[in-house]
Amino acid sequence: MTVQETTIPATFQGFGVDKPENWNKPKLVEYKRKIVNPHDVVVKNIACGLCGSDILTLKADWSPLLRNDAVVGHEIIGHVIAIGDKVTQVKIGDRVGIGAASNSCRDCSRCTHDNEQYCADGAGTYNSVDAAAEDYITQGGYSSHSIANEQFVFPIPEAMETVHAAPLMCAGLTVYSPLVRNLGTDAKGKTVGIIGIGGLGHLALQFANALGANVVAFSRTSSKKEQALKLGAHEFIATAEEKDWKKKYADHFDLILNCASGIDGLVLDNYLQVLKVDKKFVSVGLPPTKDNIQVSPHTFLHQGASFGSSLLGSKTEALQMLELATAKGVKPWVEEIQIGEDGCHEALTRCDKGDIRYRFVFTGFDKAFTA
Amino acid sequence: MTVQETTIPATFQGFGVDKPENWNKPKLVEYKRKIVNPHDVVVKNIACGLCGSDILTLKADWSPLLRNDAVVGHEIIGHVIAIGDKVTQVKIGDRVGIGAASNSCRDCSRCTHDNEQYCADGAGTYNSVDAAAEDYITQGGYSSHSIANEQFVFPIPEAMETVHAAPLMCAGLTVYSPLVRNLGTDAKGKTVGIIGIGGLGHLALQFANALGANVVAFSRTSSKKEQALKLGAHEFIATAEEKDWKKKYADHFDLILNCASGIDGLVLDNYLQVLKVDKKFVSVGLPPTKDNIQVSPHTFLHQGASFGSSLLGSKTEALQMLELATAKGVKPWVEEIQIGEDGCHEALTRCDKGDIRYRFVFTGFDKAFTA
Ligand SMILES: NC(=O)c1ccc[n+]([C@@H]2O[C@H](COP(=O)([O-])OP(=O)(O)OC[C@H]3O[C@@H](n4cnc5c(N)ncnc54)[C@H](OP(=O)(O)O)[C@@H]3O)[C@@H](O)[C@H]2O)c1
Ligand SMILES: NC(=O)c1ccc[n+]([C@@H]2O[C@H](COP(=O)([O-])OP(=O)(O)OC[C@H]3O[C@@H](n4cnc5c(N)ncnc54)[C@H](OP(=O)(O)O)[C@@H]3O)[C@@H](O)[C@H]2O)c1
Ligand SMILES: [Zn+2]
Ligand SMILES: [Zn+2]
Ligand SMILES: [Zn+2]
Ligand SMILES: [Zn+2]
Repeated sequence: MTVQETTIPATFQGFGVDKPENWNKPKLVEYKRKIVNPHDVVVKNIACGLCGSDILTLKADWSPLLRNDAVVGHEIIGHVIAIGDKVTQVKIGDRVGIGAASNSCRDCSRCTHDNEQYCADGAGTYNSVDAAAEDYITQGGYSSHSIANEQFVFPIPEAMETVHAAPLMCAGLTVYSPLVRNLGTDAKGKTVGIIGIGGLGHLALQFANALGANVVAFSRTSSKKEQALKLGAHEFIATAEEKDWKKKYADHFDLILNCASGIDGLVLDNYLQVLKVDKKFVSVGLPPTKDNIQVSPHTFLHQGASFGSSLLGSKTEALQMLELATAKGVKPWVEEIQIGEDGCHEALTRCDKGDIRYRFVFTGFDKAFTA
Repeated sequence: MTVQETTIPATFQGFGVDKPENWNKPKLVEYKRKIVNPHDVVVKNIACGLCGSDILTLKADWSPLLRNDAVVGHEIIGHVIAIGDKVTQVKIGDRVGIGAASNSCRDCSRCTHDNEQYCADGAGTYNSVDAAAEDYITQGGYSSHSIANEQFVFPIPEAMETVHAAPLMCAGLTVYSPLVRNLGTDAKGKTVGIIGIGGLGHLALQFANALGANVVAFSRTSSKKEQALKLGAHEFIATAEEKDWKKKYADHFDLILNCASGIDGLVLDNYLQVLKVDKKFVSVGLPPTKDNIQVSPHTFLHQGASFGSSLLGSKTEALQMLELATAKGVKPWVEEIQIGEDGCHEALTRCDKGDIRYRFVFTGFDKAFTA
């Protein structure tokens, strides 16, 4: 390792939560950083989006908090300040992004076949054990710096603004991947339903439209109708208000992508009934683990349908996504907010209430951190 | 209609059940037959397999019995005795088979794109309302005659014995379709797991092997191990006896096909964990509807996996399947049994107990029916 250790502070700063009850009250914390391996990239953060996963993690809705200074955030943009001596894909000074995964074994068949996000030895960007880094419990991007394996570090196109790039790192990639895996890169003539118009959903509408698909937005109420149509939906259904959409849409969808963070009003059977034969309902939305859905093989039978999930996307897909976003003008709708104890409190609280159209992005990192 | 009405008896005979409590006590019944539409084929039955679905239907484990003289059976072989005047695909005298579906609209996009088994206006061969035939409640093949739309009538290759052809009509087609839809017709290099080694499962082992796949059999106990290996499995796992197979098979399967008729010991999560990325667990097994499985999007996340069902197969697939069976010697292992009140009682009772290797086929129809 001939990494420029001197340029990297030994400790990083961030806004961390001690326990789930305090999920919306992050405090300034300082913590020992992760070691820098030969393929690692060290980034000085300049922006970070607030993903729905940040809230579910901090509330311990998925699994326990692994640290009492847990820093979340995985839509990170920053500048490279140091690189491990085997890094070839980025250089010091580059503006780059890091999403929700930040390490993997680089060697298994998943890592070598554009599925590194599914590596069994992979590490999430926060609240995750990084086996390749002395079992460090990872810390996210509401912080001064980040360290990730270059496979999970995405160069940001010059023309793209930092605040627009940030939400693409997790939300954008997470919806882009299942769209292209299921519809291909030319989705003309195909119809896709997008459920839950939040951070992920509002990008799914745009990317599905950019791929050429016919796009139907499903939201619980009609409050987002006008905006959804602007974002790229061709049709809009308020599921709590319209009762008869099932009949109208029989044999209609090539894919339904669920982006909702909960299961209120989610009647899986309704969605399965409007799929074409042999098609999928894919959930990228990850409700609290206690919220199970009851299924029976019979539910799926009449369209040969299936139900599944999708995790993030590969680096190859991330680069394609950034290209498509640039070419077609896909742009998150963001509200910028100063990072800090106040900003974190406000953004987490409001996002939890659904009071954001459609993504918070923290900025002003140089004001918040001394290092 | 210039159908040869005179050659068709006005009433058919069969072995019918009056109520679910008597599921294994069919009695000789006589009933008004279905009308013969222009695309319909009338068959004098000579053999019928006993499918697990017959038992689940008679016990009303899926839905209520629609008649009090309910005749099941949908692995039917017989000779054509009359045809509607638009029939072009078979002629009088042909030896043909009928599976678990027997009518559809012939017109919708599913019917015109090799998915007629998924037609929203389709009719099952028994205990089903046939909208295209004056809402007749259909009767199955434990009977003297059958009537089905020619799209659901399959010519039987001359070299194939009747008792071997019967189980292919439902069990064979039902496993063949998801195998080729998910693995293609050349499955070399792909690995498939088959759960539940009964009527469907023992054919799935053979067809998966015939397609060139690497085949792993999953059975609750080791009692069928030797036979499963003979049938085409390369490996065998007794799920109630071996505990550690999950680890050994990580990232291993391109498809898992569940052929079990119940969910005892079915830990879905175990199977999802051994799939490769973006692959499916497909259930053709249809347990009682009360037996739900609890899922959460998290369950599927680590392999981007999905869970679904598959219904029968198309006529195009049926013809391909019969060709492959002939070419590769795929042959159901059958126990022949005289149709009649005694035979039906014995076969239903023993199949329900799992006491059959691997399919009952009723024969001797000319002895049982007077018409
Ligand atoms: N699979 C992955 O790799 C991956 C990656 C990133 C995020 N995620 C997950 O994706 C989900 C969405 O994240 P996000 O950042 O888009 O969150 P978000 O901005 O908060 O949006 C979530 C949307 O879900 C709907 N919703 C909210 N609460 C709900 C409830 N209780 N029941 C049903 N629907 C509800 C709302 O849409 P409407 O008002 O339109 O109904 C809301 O806008 C989260 O579960 C997150 O953890 C998964
Ligand atoms: N989707 C479709 O289109 C379609 C078409 C035809 C049939 N089916 C369904 O497919 C299933 C199998 O039919 P089949 O004719 O093959 O039945 P079968 O001959 O009775 O075989 C069923 C097998 O399932 C396993 N099994 C039995 N009881 C079980 C329980 N309670 N829990 C877990 N596993 C159990 C046994 O395998 P092991 O001893 O090896 O564990 C048994 O050999 C039935 O549910 C049937 O309704 C569906
Ligand atoms: Zn995220
Ligand atoms: Zn790996
Ligand atoms: Zn059957
Ligand atoms: Zn149809």
